[in-house]
Amino acid sequence: MCKLPFQETADGLDAAFVGVPIDTGTSNRPGARFGPRQIRVESAMIRAYNSWTRAAPYESLKVADIGDVNVNLFDLKDTCKKIREAYREIVATGCIPLTLGGDHTIAYPILQAVAERHGPVGLIHVDAHADTSDMILGEKIGHGTPFRRCVEEGLLDCKRVAQIGLRGSGYSPDNYEWSRAQGFRVVEAVECWHKSLVPLMEEVRAQMRSGPVYLSFDIDSLDPGFAPGTGTPEIAGLTPIQGLEIIRGCRGLNLVGCDLVEVAPAYDTTGIDNKWRKTTTTKSKN
Amino acid sequence: MCKLPFQETADGLDAAFVGVPIDTGTSNRPGARFGPRQIRVESAMIRAYNSWTRAAPYESLKVADIGDVNVNLFDLKDTCKKIREAYREIVATGCIPLTLGGDHTIAYPILQAVAERHGPVGLIHVDAHADTSDMILGEKIGHGTPFRRCVEEGLLDCKRVAQIGLRGSGYSPDNYEWSRAQGFRVVEAVECWHKSLVPLMEEVRAQMRSGPVYLSFDIDSLDPGFAPGTGTPEIAGLTPIQGLEIIRGCRGLNLVGCDLVEVAPAYDTTGIDNKWRKTTTTKSKN
Amino acid sequence: MCKLPFQETADGLDAAFVGVPIDTGTSNRPGARFGPRQIRVESAMIRAYNSWTRAAPYESLKVADIGDVNVNLFDLKDTCKKIREAYREIVATGCIPLTLGGDHTIAYPILQAVAERHGPVGLIHVDAHADTSDMILGEKIGHGTPFRRCVEEGLLDCKRVAQIGLRGSGYSPDNYEWSRAQGFRVVEAVECWHKSLVPLMEEVRAQMRSGPVYLSFDIDSLDPGFAPGTGTPEIAGLTPIQGLEIIRGCRGLNLVGCDLVEVAPAYDTTGIDNKWRKTTTTKSKN
Amino acid sequence: MCKLPFQETADGLDAAFVGVPIDTGTSNRPGARFGPRQIRVESAMIRAYNSWTRAAPYESLKVADIGDVNVNLFDLKDTCKKIREAYREIVATGCIPLTLGGDHTIAYPILQAVAERHGPVGLIHVDAHADTSDMILGEKIGHGTPFRRCVEEGLLDCKRVAQIGLRGSGYSPDNYEWSRAQGFRVVEAVECWHKSLVPLMEEVRAQMRSGPVYLSFDIDSLDPGFAPGTGTPEIAGLTPIQGLEIIRGCRGLNLVGCDLVEVAPAYDTTGIDNKWRKTTTTKSKN
Amino acid sequence: MCKLPFQETADGLDAAFVGVPIDTGTSNRPGARFGPRQIRVESAMIRAYNSWTRAAPYESLKVADIGDVNVNLFDLKDTCKKIREAYREIVATGCIPLTLGGDHTIAYPILQAVAERHGPVGLIHVDAHADTSDMILGEKIGHGTPFRRCVEEGLLDCKRVAQIGLRGSGYSPDNYEWSRAQGFRVVEAVECWHKSLVPLMEEVRAQMRSGPVYLSFDIDSLDPGFAPGTGTPEIAGLTPIQGLEIIRGCRGLNLVGCDLVEVAPAYDTTGIDNKWRKTTTTKSKN
Amino acid sequence: MCKLPFQETADGLDAAFVGVPIDTGTSNRPGARFGPRQIRVESAMIRAYNSWTRAAPYESLKVADIGDVNVNLFDLKDTCKKIREAYREIVATGCIPLTLGGDHTIAYPILQAVAERHGPVGLIHVDAHADTSDMILGEKIGHGTPFRRCVEEGLLDCKRVAQIGLRGSGYSPDNYEWSRAQGFRVVEAVECWHKSLVPLMEEVRAQMRSGPVYLSFDIDSLDPGFAPGTGTPEIAGLTPIQGLEIIRGCRGLNLVGCDLVEVAPAYDTTGIDNKWRKTTTTKSKN
Repeated sequence: MCKLPFQETADGLDAAFVGVPIDTGTSNRPGARFGPRQIRVESAMIRAYNSWTRAAPYESLKVADIGDVNVNLFDLKDTCKKIREAYREIVATGCIPLTLGGDHTIAYPILQAVAERHGPVGLIHVDAHADTSDMILGEKIGHGTPFRRCVEEGLLDCKRVAQIGLRGSGYSPDNYEWSRAQGFRVVEAVECWHKSLVPLMEEVRAQMRSGPVYLSFDIDSLDPGFAPGTGTPEIAGLTPIQGLEIIRGCRGLNLVGCDLVEVAPAYDTTGIDNKWRKTTTTKSKN
Repeated sequence: MCKLPFQETADGLDAAFVGVPIDTGTSNRPGARFGPRQIRVESAMIRAYNSWTRAAPYESLKVADIGDVNVNLFDLKDTCKKIREAYREIVATGCIPLTLGGDHTIAYPILQAVAERHGPVGLIHVDAHADTSDMILGEKIGHGTPFRRCVEEGLLDCKRVAQIGLRGSGYSPDNYEWSRAQGFRVVEAVECWHKSLVPLMEEVRAQMRSGPVYLSFDIDSLDPGFAPGTGTPEIAGLTPIQGLEIIRGCRGLNLVGCDLVEVAPAYDTTGIDNKWRKTTTTKSKN
Repeated sequence: MCKLPFQETADGLDAAFVGVPIDTGTSNRPGARFGPRQIRVESAMIRAYNSWTRAAPYESLKVADIGDVNVNLFDLKDTCKKIREAYREIVATGCIPLTLGGDHTIAYPILQAVAERHGPVGLIHVDAHADTSDMILGEKIGHGTPFRRCVEEGLLDCKRVAQIGLRGSGYSPDNYEWSRAQGFRVVEAVECWHKSLVPLMEEVRAQMRSGPVYLSFDIDSLDPGFAPGTGTPEIAGLTPIQGLEIIRGCRGLNLVGCDLVEVAPAYDTTGIDNKWRKTTTTKSKN
Repeated sequence: MCKLPFQETADGLDAAFVGVPIDTGTSNRPGARFGPRQIRVESAMIRAYNSWTRAAPYESLKVADIGDVNVNLFDLKDTCKKIREAYREIVATGCIPLTLGGDHTIAYPILQAVAERHGPVGLIHVDAHADTSDMILGEKIGHGTPFRRCVEEGLLDCKRVAQIGLRGSGYSPDNYEWSRAQGFRVVEAVECWHKSLVPLMEEVRAQMRSGPVYLSFDIDSLDPGFAPGTGTPEIAGLTPIQGLEIIRGCRGLNLVGCDLVEVAPAYDTTGIDNKWRKTTTTKSKN
Repeated sequence: MCKLPFQETADGLDAAFVGVPIDTGTSNRPGARFGPRQIRVESAMIRAYNSWTRAAPYESLKVADIGDVNVNLFDLKDTCKKIREAYREIVATGCIPLTLGGDHTIAYPILQAVAERHGPVGLIHVDAHADTSDMILGEKIGHGTPFRRCVEEGLLDCKRVAQIGLRGSGYSPDNYEWSRAQGFRVVEAVECWHKSLVPLMEEVRAQMRSGPVYLSFDIDSLDPGFAPGTGTPEIAGLTPIQGLEIIRGCRGLNLVGCDLVEVAPAYDTTGIDNKWRKTTTTKSKN
Repeated sequence: MCKLPFQETADGLDAAFVGVPIDTGTSNRPGARFGPRQIRVESAMIRAYNSWTRAAPYESLKVADIGDVNVNLFDLKDTCKKIREAYREIVATGCIPLTLGGDHTIAYPILQAVAERHGPVGLIHVDAHADTSDMILGEKIGHGTPFRRCVEEGLLDCKRVAQIGLRGSGYSPDNYEWSRAQGFRVVEAVECWHKSLVPLMEEVRAQMRSGPVYLSFDIDSLDPGFAPGTGTPEIAGLTPIQGLEIIRGCRGLNLVGCDLVEVAPAYDTTGIDNKWRKTTTTKSKN
């Protein structure tokens, strides 16, 4: 990843890239199991410095790629167990996991491990979908339900949750009612149209305060014109510029983990959204 | 379409999806004959409610898919006749036709049928091209001439016509002179750049007043970065966000028909613009 | 090109399209050698008039396509020599070369020929990258170094250089430090986000004054969502709208040459960015 | 399917097309969940008669499309149960199921239902892989194990099993040892190279005798040059000609079911292997 | 074409490449209007000599490209008239037309012009389809009917007609009955499987004798694995090797014209079948 | 590569995979610089045993991946020097280099290093093109000339050279005359049509005797229907089956090196020819 060294475990690292190559929680088009591989290949073009933000993350932090979690492609519940255990080991070392997904189901077992160490966390959730359904196609575990499960288990500090970029049609008159009822801040995509998100992120930073924060970034938050390589595209989404504004807007937060999920390279015949990668810019906390 | 029921005729419906699978009026890249099929396939992802607009079109209206019009792929004039006759039957039932094109030629015979029932209609025409040429490659009937024919036959209430998104190079110093001379409001793409179209649509609603209005939406009005699957792309077009603002901006109008034309799936290798579909949101008139 | 006549030499022309089909100066994905061919094929859709700008370039100027420069695909330094000599002949006739690239290396020998005739020129350089490295992969000549070489040889009037759209990660804390040290105006992409570039171009025109100006437009200045067909895409770039604002903002300048480089059609499976072509609109100086 | 009528159940049919849209048993590239949809769309081009075989299947048999089995995308074992139950109902009516897969896992529950009615069946299994592993990535149920499970449960008449087209590298010195030990006839792809398979099919028909036979056709038996749209391609496979020879070579057999599996449209950017469809030609038993 | 000179008319030529850019006679997927353009672009790779056949067509014959026929995209009957007239002028000069199609409809007006000069001609027709229907979708003129029309008008010497490669399903029990009834030799694709076509071509040459012969080569005669870029693909077709054997097997015949039709580049995302081009090898008659 | 271990140098290895990521010797479509990366990614699917050949190469040989040679993308002659030096070090250890190209230019410096150690070598050269030109586009070094250079420098034992699969058009009446004059055996593609190459390889093994042999396999030897991902496709080539017959036919030879060149992934939109990889099966010499 990013021409960083590879090492077997998270020992001694400030942050570590980890792949979770599954798509068996996907309800529509699968393919996100190849997300980690493709993001790594494409990341070879990223260099050490960003001239605008003056970030130099690999100077201020010790970062490595620690490979993929071992998953069970034929049993999603067993996969969740394996992910939780792997992340327990990672966070136990004090390392911040930077996850390459994988479908959004994985946020649930990752947050189980993260909250076990840090207590209930704040969440910045960037996505086209709220992923707070109770059930998905008759099941409790899947890529449409992770944050419902997290709330039920007390993994989130609900007053410090922001969901950004939500849109699309739904199964009920108000898809986001449940989120609001938990105390989440919901920022629908329509509220982001034609705007810089710098002011929004000021408010989000205020909302997050100094507690631990997890950033979960679903690539389908972006408009499919910019990021077609995903399973459940929805039109009229965020721009890559707004995506960068969100990520850079996290500067100064107490980030304890982040993920980039739902990257399904097969649907991107041009390769353009592989260009979109989690820039680690914001993680240099000074 | 949209998992709606299929029925043979328009009887008893408030609105009906109708396919018109032709591209024989196309001067450049053909392929729009597969537009109706692909839009139907992709529409399976659309669900019943929109949380932002609070629209629930299938609760407030009785809608079905009534299949494709029978066309003659080898004789464009005969096809126009067949379309006109099929639409006469549809509008005779009081049903609003929601057309899936097909190239833009089809707007001419559809408007013949619609105006026969409703009298001269207002028109909201969203397109990269004015489609008001007198001749196209030596012929009177083709996808560059429908609105000239409509004016000649008195089908449009010219003071209540708005053309939005026009751009590109042309055969004369002012491509839109004829439109303006008829009293049309012409909104070039340049006038839409960097802007929300919500204020524009307020003006358009005022222009349309309470009379019958037809909405004709050419997918090439959108920038080809967002909607490459069309025959005659032109850069620097509208965004999907602006497209939604136009469609939602029709709320409250007396719509008597609408179409989505020039969707040519073969040129969209990523499938992204199939995601763009006519949301029927605005048709819930309350 | 644009259905213009073809002629063997630049004699008697105000401006001429010239192809320079190389990509052997490319450090990442090659393919720009097919840029000239593809741009010519796609340009068949461009017509004589632009209704918004009221430009009619082929009426006010005598323009033709004079074919491709003869290059040496196996020796980049020899290719540079061949380009310089070919352009000497073109500019000797008083003709303005409109170059279809080819990778950005070609700007260096072209500017040698142009400055030989006109003296040090102003430069409007639109690009994701500054292209001012001293060395690229151990070599002096390549697509990352042309403007460093130009400055060393005194080909540029450094106070009249503007670089627009720069972004991406780099090898040093400030990638653009050298540019600023020469007196260039650097406009990073971040400074262009969410904005019309019309005001910027007013300032650029003031900066350029009445002296000779060269416009070098790298297609990767645009966001890869709009123009994927290039070798080194960088997210969060300019929009096609901003690109047109830059080109149209050159109206009135004393342009002595321009280029469109790094168009690599193989990476654009949808064909969309072939639609982006150098509109010659702005060159009608009245 | 094939412009056949759609009906809800198999009642009164000689044969029925059934979709089983899963890929959650896939170990490599997923996507076969969209196989049934795409095969149906492409099948619109197939007409009623074949001039060479003189087959007219829709005249001699009553055939319809009965839609998709309801599956559980998040629990493969539950999906197997649902498939078995759905097929029990289908075969109970005396109807022959013509299955559109779906990954090869589905052959296991289908054969459970089929053998429950007909007793142990003969099997013509056309595939690049034997699919007889005991475990796949640590699990008993998946697309690499169905025929091992079938043998364990006594669903196959092992002397009447032929596996055709096997090839590729494996985890043990002889991948096909287990098959041969059961009494299966194994015909490796190498044995098919450069040959008509008409003589082979004579032998296979003799092997099958008059008992019930199930045909399981994995699209990856074909060379990926002809059928790229699948998850686990292996070079040097069968040609479409050989595929037709196999299918036509089944004429006269007592077929009690057949399937076409592992069609994953997303990997076929040209659409060519959607052209490959189960021709029902051979099912006219006279 | 093939880097040959371009000239306005056929005067003084032994043979001329002519484009007929239509697809308005297409019943399924259109796009063949771009066949001539794409074949010309790809032909740049063909060099002057073939080492195996020892053919050097451009030394033994005077050949040029004379551009495209002017067609009417909106009126197929008018297009046929325009083609006939253009070919009358070409054959009047004694030049052999080498046609780049365009859909197969064009063979009809071309043969009208050819037979007017040479009398009824022999025909070598290589195709997946017989193209001898009486009507196609209710019309007399289209890409499924040209050879029926030719027979009705006495343009063919029916004892000297061979149709090679026919296959696919049809609307009647024997699709090729009418052909045989006219005295055509019908060689179904099945008869070509697994074989060199050199012996067949010996028989065809004997059948053609010394009279004038027209060669009509539909790209869909080839298997879609090799030539996906066409509108109506049928599996299990000829190989490119067999295609070359047919073309080279024409050596010594009295060819008075030939065509390559139904090349629709948009469906060939890999560009492979553009590589297939009419090699003029066989036209060196000595 | 093939999930083999990675190590820095060739020390202690029987054979080593080495990447040479260049395409700057390419005269037509570049892209082979990404061949090594893509072959490595795709090779993850190859397992340890081949059931047909009973080969188990990783048991009988010690093999690893030693990464890429450091090349100079901007100076082809310097690149050749760097390759020669890197291979000198590899062969000095007694290791057999298994090269992943890269364009065919690289065979020249590799053979310099190989012959320096082993003396003039036999050559099995599988290719659509002879690659024996004296000059290519005016230069001595490029992908059309390597074997001319090798002969001039005495690197080949000309009586033990076989060129297989040659075809396509050329610049002279007999493109292969020079090869034959050196004593090479030339097997044109036409001589391979419709045939197993097992008998040919018996003859080739006899020709090679017990001396050192180098195998150079250009992916364009295969028909572009099977392997579109290359820069200079030629129709009517070898099948993957014949390719395997050639590779397996090398069993027992004294192989001192081999390469797979001209794999250009960007032109293979389906990914099918990445499936084609150098199986090392045959190299187990017992």
